[in-house]
Amino acid sequence: MPQLGLLPKRAWAALFSQLLRPPPSACTQAVRGHSQGTRDFSPQQMVVREKILDVVVSCFKRHGAQGLDTPAFELKEMLTENYGENSGLIYDLKDQGGELLSLRYDLTVPFARYLAMNKLKKMKRYHVGKVWRRESPAIVQGRYREFCQCDFDIAGQFDPMIPDAECLKIICEILSGLQLGNFLIKVNDRRIIDGVFAVCGVPESKFRVICSSIDKLDKMPWTDVRHEMVTKKGLAPEVADRIGDYVQCHGGVSLVEQLFQDPRLSQNKQALEGLRDLKLLFEYLTLFGITDKISFDLSLARGLDYYTGVIYEAVLLQTPAQAEEEPLNVGSVAAGGRYDELVAMFDPKGHKVPCVGLSIGVERIFYIVEQRMKALGEKIRATETQVFVATPQKNFLQERLKLIAELWDAGIKAEMPYKNNPKLLSQLHYCENTGIPLVVIIGEQELKEGVVKIRSVASRGEVAVKREDLVTEIQKRLSES
Amino acid sequence: MPQLGLLPKRAWAALFSQLLRPPPSACTQAVRGHSQGTRDFSPQQMVVREKILDVVVSCFKRHGAQGLDTPAFELKEMLTENYGENSGLIYDLKDQGGELLSLRYDLTVPFARYLAMNKLKKMKRYHVGKVWRRESPAIVQGRYREFCQCDFDIAGQFDPMIPDAECLKIICEILSGLQLGNFLIKVNDRRIIDGVFAVCGVPESKFRVICSSIDKLDKMPWTDVRHEMVTKKGLAPEVADRIGDYVQCHGGVSLVEQLFQDPRLSQNKQALEGLRDLKLLFEYLTLFGITDKISFDLSLARGLDYYTGVIYEAVLLQTPAQAEEEPLNVGSVAAGGRYDELVAMFDPKGHKVPCVGLSIGVERIFYIVEQRMKALGEKIRATETQVFVATPQKNFLQERLKLIAELWDAGIKAEMPYKNNPKLLSQLHYCENTGIPLVVIIGEQELKEGVVKIRSVASRGEVAVKREDLVTEIQKRLSES
Repeated sequence: MPQLGLLPKRAWAALFSQLLRPPPSACTQAVRGHSQGTRDFSPQQMVVREKILDVVVSCFKRHGAQGLDTPAFELKEMLTENYGENSGLIYDLKDQGGELLSLRYDLTVPFARYLAMNKLKKMKRYHVGKVWRRESPAIVQGRYREFCQCDFDIAGQFDPMIPDAECLKIICEILSGLQLGNFLIKVNDRRIIDGVFAVCGVPESKFRVICSSIDKLDKMPWTDVRHEMVTKKGLAPEVADRIGDYVQCHGGVSLVEQLFQDPRLSQNKQALEGLRDLKLLFEYLTLFGITDKISFDLSLARGLDYYTGVIYEAVLLQTPAQAEEEPLNVGSVAAGGRYDELVAMFDPKGHKVPCVGLSIGVERIFYIVEQRMKALGEKIRATETQVFVATPQKNFLQERLKLIAELWDAGIKAEMPYKNNPKLLSQLHYCENTGIPLVVIIGEQELKEGVVKIRSVASRGEVAVKREDLVTEIQKRLSES
Repeated sequence: MPQLGLLPKRAWAALFSQLLRPPPSACTQAVRGHSQGTRDFSPQQMVVREKILDVVVSCFKRHGAQGLDTPAFELKEMLTENYGENSGLIYDLKDQGGELLSLRYDLTVPFARYLAMNKLKKMKRYHVGKVWRRESPAIVQGRYREFCQCDFDIAGQFDPMIPDAECLKIICEILSGLQLGNFLIKVNDRRIIDGVFAVCGVPESKFRVICSSIDKLDKMPWTDVRHEMVTKKGLAPEVADRIGDYVQCHGGVSLVEQLFQDPRLSQNKQALEGLRDLKLLFEYLTLFGITDKISFDLSLARGLDYYTGVIYEAVLLQTPAQAEEEPLNVGSVAAGGRYDELVAMFDPKGHKVPCVGLSIGVERIFYIVEQRMKALGEKIRATETQVFVATPQKNFLQERLKLIAELWDAGIKAEMPYKNNPKLLSQLHYCENTGIPLVVIIGEQELKEGVVKIRSVASRGEVAVKREDLVTEIQKRLSES
C-alpha cells in the first residue's frame, strides 16, 4: 500500500484548525475564473489525486470488486425521485430535442438502474467518477459543483450484515492506508430512526422531513434543529423534546443492549429489527478488529431518501492540542448504508435486489493531503521524466532526435528541449527544477569519440559511456535508484 | 509495454470486414436501454479499457507530459465559436439560473482556456476524459454521444516542427504498442489547403465551408463531395475541378518537392510556408525512423476550425486478404494538428501561445481490441481476486471473517461467500468460473489441528499449512505465479 507521509501531532492540529476556516486564498483564486463553481486540477494536484485514487481503488480491488462505468447523464425521470429535499440540486440538460436528461447526482442511482436494466441479481462493483450538484454559494466552504466520487457497493440477497461489515472494514482500510490521522465511523439504522420517530409521536407523513432536520445535527446545535422541526416542519414541541432525548445518545454495543431494554423503543417492531442487525454487525466488526473505530450514534440520519437499513459516516478527528480536550469532528470523509428498495424502482416488475455500499469523500481527502504535503514542504514532481537529452552544441538537433527516439523506443521516459540551439546551463537548470534524475549529454566531441556522457543531476558527476551501451547503462542506473 | 495479443492475418481480415458493417446485435442491445445514445461499460469492458488507457497514458508520460483535469462543462460562450459546422452538436445545460453552460465538445478548447486563464506560456500535458456530442442517430454506426478522449498537447513558442514531429512519434508508439496491425498517418497542412483553395479560385469567405466538404473525402467519393461543393456551397464547377486535381494527390516527401515546383501553388505564400514546414517535418520523422508510416495526403482537411498548420490523422489498414489487393482504410484512430491562434481567443490581451497536439480515438480502439479478444476466445477476468476463503463447515462464519481480515490486512486480494452455510462445491465452482487461483479452506478439523488448507484451483492439489504461516505461504505462492 503506498504510504503518504505522516505528520506530527502539532502540525495536524494546526492543519485541522485551518480546515475549519474557509479555504485559503490560493484555493479561492483557482475558483475565481470559474464562477460556475467548478475548477481545474493542475498537474501537481493531479499527482496527489492519482496517488489517493490508487489507494482507494487498490482497496476496492482487494475486496473483489469489479469496475463499472455509466454515462454522465441519465434520463431526468430516473433521478428526480431519489434525493429528497436535494432534488433541486440536480443539473438538467437543455431540451434540444429527444429525451429530457440530467447530470448524475451520485453513482448509486445509476448503479441501481444498471442492475435493474441488466436483470442482475448480484454484483460487487466499484465506480470512480464525477458527479454534479447545483450547490449554491458553498464554494467558499470548499464545496464544488463538480466533484469526484469513489463508490463500492455489494448487491445481492445474502445473510444479514456480512456485506455491511465488509463495507465498514473497507472504510477503515482506506482511511488508515491514507494516514489521515484518527477517525471514527458513526453507525445508525434507518429503522431505528423511524422507530424513534414513531414512539416519540412523529406523524408518519413527516418522517422524511424530520429525518432531513436530524441530518443537520453535525452542522447545527440541537436547539437550532429543534427550532427548525417545530417552526418550519410543524412538529409539536413535546415530540421534538422526546426525539432530543434519543438523538443525543451515542456509544458502543452496550448502547444497543440498553435500547433493547428501552420501554418505548422495545415495543417498536422496526426498531427491534434495526437493533438486532446492529448487534450482529458489532459481532462481525469485533472479528475484523475494528470496533474501536465505530460509534453507534442516534443522531446520524443521512439525508438521502433511499436508505432502508444500516447507515454510516466516517469523520476525521482532530488530534486534541491538549490531553483533556475532546477530539474535534472535522467533517465527513466517507459514508454509505443499505438501500434494499432502490433497484426495484427501476425494474418493470419491481423485483428487489438488496444493496449496501459506501462512498469515499475523496475531494475533502485530496484537500487535506495537499495541505499536509504543503505543510511538510514536500515538492511534488508533475512529470515522471527519467532522462533529459541535452547538448552543449549548436545545430546538433539531428543527433539528439536520433538518440531520444532510441530511449523512447526502449520505454525510457525522456525529454529534450524543442530548440535548435539550447543553452547547456538552462538545460541543466530545467532538470534540477523539475527533478529529472539523469542527463544524457551529446556534442561534437562525444560524437567523434563514439560516446555519450551520463550526468547525475543530484551528484553532478559525469561519466562517458559507449554510444551503443547507452540504453543498457541508463536502464541499469534507473533500476538501481 | 503491456502486450495485447496478436491476431493471425486472416482473423484480422474477418474482423475488419465486420467493422465496416454496423456493430453486431450484442452492441446494439447494450444501447437499447439508453435511447439517449450513451452506454454503460460492463466489468469485462472496463478491464479492456483500463489496459488500453494504460498503454496510452504510459506513452504520454514517457514523453514528459503532465496530467490536467478540467470540468465537464464550460461557459457556453467559450465553446460556440470553435467547432465550425459542428457547433450544433454541443450539449447545453438548462438555464437554472447563473451562467449559461455547455458540456465540453473536446479537450482542446478547455486546454486553451486553461492556458490563457493561468497565463501559461508553455506546457506539455495529457488529459483523459469524457466529451459529449449530440450526434444524431449515428449509434448504429458505432458512434456514441458520450465518449472518452485521450489528448496530448505541447504548448509554447519553439523551433519549428520539433514538437509536431514528437506528436507523430507518439501516435506511432501508441498504435504499435496496442498491436492494432498496420496503420498509416495522413499528414497535410491547413496553409497548403488554403493555398490550394486560393490558387483554384475559391473566394476566401468560402474557405471554411469548402474545407468541411473536403473533410468528408474519407467517407464519400470525390464526385459526391464535388456535387456538395457546387450545389450546396455554391462553388463554380471549374473551381471544384481544379481542387479535385490537387486533393487526389498523396505521397511522401517527393510530393512536397513536386508541389514546390507547381507553377500555381509555388506563387502562394501560405502554401510555401506549409510546404517548407512539411519538408522539415519529414526530415525529423526520418530521424525518428517512422516515415514509412506517413503519407502526405492533400485530401486530409480535418473539420475543426481551430487548426492553423500541420494536421494529421491515423487510419488502420486492413491486412489485404489477397496480396494484390490494396490495403483498406477502416477508419481514423488518432488525429491532431497545430492550432496557434486558439489560446489567444481566450486571453483578454490576445497573447498567442502556439500549440500542437493529438487525440487518440480510444473508443474505436476499445471496440477493435474487444472484438479481437472475443475472436481469440480470450476470457477476461473482471476481478483481480487472488484468494477465496472457503469452508466445508456450517456455522463457521466467525473463523472465516477472522481469517479473511488477516489476508486483507496483508494486502492480499481476497473474497468469501456472504453466507453462513455455503456449499463447498459451489464455492470451488465460483473460483473456477471467475479465475481465482487459490482457495484457503478452513473447517472444524483444520481448526483443531491449527492448520488451514491451501488449494490450487488449476491443479486441484491441496496442502495443509500452519495457521500462523498462512499469509507468508500465500504471498510466496503469489509471487511465484
